[in-house]
Amino acid sequence: MSTVPLLDDDQLTPEAAAVFADIRAVRGTDTVNNFWRALAHDPVTLKRTWESLKQVMAPGALDPLTKEMLYVAVSVANSCEYCIRSHRAAARAKGMTDAQFMELLAVVGMASETNRLATGLQVPVDAAFGPESAVRERP
Amino acid sequence: MSTVPLLDDDQLTPEAAAVFADIRAVRGTDTVNNFWRALAHDPVTLKRTWESLKQVMAPGALDPLTKEMLYVAVSVANSCEYCIRSHRAAARAKGMTDAQFMELLAVVGMASETNRLATGLQVPVDAAFGPESAVRERP
Amino acid sequence: MSTVPLLDDDQLTPEAAAVFADIRAVRGTDTVNNFWRALAHDPVTLKRTWESLKQVMAPGALDPLTKEMLYVAVSVANSCEYCIRSHRAAARAKGMTDAQFMELLAVVGMASETNRLATGLQVPVDAAFGPESAVRERP
Amino acid sequence: MSTVPLLDDDQLTPEAAAVFADIRAVRGTDTVNNFWRALAHDPVTLKRTWESLKQVMAPGALDPLTKEMLYVAVSVANSCEYCIRSHRAAARAKGMTDAQFMELLAVVGMASETNRLATGLQVPVDAAFGPESAVRERP
Amino acid sequence: MSTVPLLDDDQLTPEAAAVFADIRAVRGTDTVNNFWRALAHDPVTLKRTWESLKQVMAPGALDPLTKEMLYVAVSVANSCEYCIRSHRAAARAKGMTDAQFMELLAVVGMASETNRLATGLQVPVDAAFGPESAVRERP
Amino acid sequence: MSTVPLLDDDQLTPEAAAVFADIRAVRGTDTVNNFWRALAHDPVTLKRTWESLKQVMAPGALDPLTKEMLYVAVSVANSCEYCIRSHRAAARAKGMTDAQFMELLAVVGMASETNRLATGLQVPVDAAFGPESAVRERP
Repeated sequence: MSTVPLLDDDQLTPEAAAVFADIRAVRGTDTVNNFWRALAHDPVTLKRTWESLKQVMAPGALDPLTKEMLYVAVSVANSCEYCIRSHRAAARAKGMTDAQFMELLAVVGMASETNRLATGLQVPVDAAFGPESAVRERP
Repeated sequence: MSTVPLLDDDQLTPEAAAVFADIRAVRGTDTVNNFWRALAHDPVTLKRTWESLKQVMAPGALDPLTKEMLYVAVSVANSCEYCIRSHRAAARAKGMTDAQFMELLAVVGMASETNRLATGLQVPVDAAFGPESAVRERP
Repeated sequence: MSTVPLLDDDQLTPEAAAVFADIRAVRGTDTVNNFWRALAHDPVTLKRTWESLKQVMAPGALDPLTKEMLYVAVSVANSCEYCIRSHRAAARAKGMTDAQFMELLAVVGMASETNRLATGLQVPVDAAFGPESAVRERP
Repeated sequence: MSTVPLLDDDQLTPEAAAVFADIRAVRGTDTVNNFWRALAHDPVTLKRTWESLKQVMAPGALDPLTKEMLYVAVSVANSCEYCIRSHRAAARAKGMTDAQFMELLAVVGMASETNRLATGLQVPVDAAFGPESAVRERP
Repeated sequence: MSTVPLLDDDQLTPEAAAVFADIRAVRGTDTVNNFWRALAHDPVTLKRTWESLKQVMAPGALDPLTKEMLYVAVSVANSCEYCIRSHRAAARAKGMTDAQFMELLAVVGMASETNRLATGLQVPVDAAFGPESAVRERP
Repeated sequence: MSTVPLLDDDQLTPEAAAVFADIRAVRGTDTVNNFWRALAHDPVTLKRTWESLKQVMAPGALDPLTKEMLYVAVSVANSCEYCIRSHRAAARAKGMTDAQFMELLAVVGMASETNRLATGLQVPVDAAFGPESAVRERP
């Protein structure tokens, strides 16, 4: 049971209804999942979150499947069951195989292990990793 | 300053020295970074961690670059500076561009935002995400 | 199902019963919620936790509603369902509206997003934020 | 040292420069802090994050100071030093006193303690907290 | 419902079956708990995880009960219900009393509270804690 | 640099000075570490935290060294550098050897890895772990 009721289509404000229409159009399905039905109580946040998600998850320097897998990995690290399940479903719809999902989890687990070891050991950053910049300055 | 001194090559036990030799051989460089020099105080954990990392990060269902990017994403979610810097360097060595790194961070940020929204709203898992199984049972 | 049985009133030690009596008196209700019924297995921790909570949540420099909303926000960040639900109820009893709850979640989500971005970017603290002291020294 | 170089004003793309101009206009100061100078490597994320932050932190059902204090609390729970320092400064600029800051931290600490107790005890949600809805359905 | 089906004994690959046989032999019971039945979809990760767990949890500088209690404490901090329940059961099988479990939780709660206070206050490390090394260098 | 100035002995309120005197008496040293000097800005929280810590860390069903090691483990999981360093020092003062510290970290790492695997797999709790109660009911 959510902390707010899930809104049906006939309970939406016009602004929320417009977001639902866009979700349906972009995803090519009539289904609008529960996350949006809970968030619809706050149409401004609903619209901002949906617009942001569309922008962030669109093809860019990374392909959509890689992005969904990153999303799943972060959701596991943040212990969000809803997000693990919904983005795993999205990743599978974009082609993630069962073997890829299991490998993804192995990486998440291994990273979490060495994250804690490095934190507990308080390992100083090697000169090779630290001061050099990731992005070369524009001329 | 680490919580344990970083060991130089001449301070290693034979078991730790063997791991360092393998790190150098696999990576094709003489450099052994600080994480391993701290972990070398416990040669059993050093060896287990290195063997596990080799196995987890090897090419498989996911390519090595995707795995490194997942590693970076989890390290950000777990707030491990050392791991962010060292695995970002590893990802760049495997071809991650600056634009890909920025997009990766955008996904990590967006996932963290919706993770918290879904948790705060306590959104129930949609039937479409929940009971269906990710891996079909073997016949 | 909790990891310890929830104690009924007739199962309490005298020290735990005294705490339950104070909870009822302070809150003006006969109900003692499950958190205290689980904690009652350790009467010393029960008493310390209740006394601390009374002190921390009393009116002070911050009003009680603001404190409850901070409590809810931290509980979301720490992924504690029980705490989200119980302190949301407490906040509502102190006047939190539905719109305030939704805005609270929007802030928690936004903060979590930029927390991860700042961590991933390893942004150095601006001089303006760092060395200046928050509390002026006593003369 | 950040993982990406902090961009100076003369290194910005036109889109990033427009965001910087808006930051200066909205905040009434010439200073643009380091977070935005790091994020400016990705002008699309820069713009989205700034626009979202403006919307989320604007006066609404909650006042701006309460929102900043919620932001600080979440940043502590997420262990983001940069965010703790920058949003504490913002909260102070909006009137947070030293005593309020100390009380805020006391609440964050207390919530984290009982969050872990409730999680370790796996306390089941009381009927009074669970199924009732936070937001009454629209007629 | 898990994200992958739990495998029965007759659904295992030969490699996974060998791990299950070892689990049964080491633990002296026919029961193989659900964690391993989910992980069995990835026999390589199954084997690595089981071998690592055996090594880490074996008697060494710390006794097995202390290790199980550390495991429970970390699982609470990481909000993993399955791990809290399974390792609490393991700790009880190794002699943890109910009073010890309650004290363990009190420590986890107290640590989480002061962790957040120290983080929010950004307390600088005392010279006495910082530069001195935990492990004396080998001659 | 802390977010509040560290108070010297001559800057304390009488209530804070009394707590400092008790810290010195209980610990048998003149040193009062930085955590308390930052917390002293809020004498009520200072006193409550110190009294709670004394109670929680006193010998009970668990010995003081085990409690300190649990404290270190949780501090690693919560990414609190100050707490890792100060409680590692406390654990060493109570007899923790270097080998025990390294094993403690190995357990923390391993637990974090399997925590994430169990969360990602969403493993259902075995009947053997769940409904049975940890503490037998009082007759």
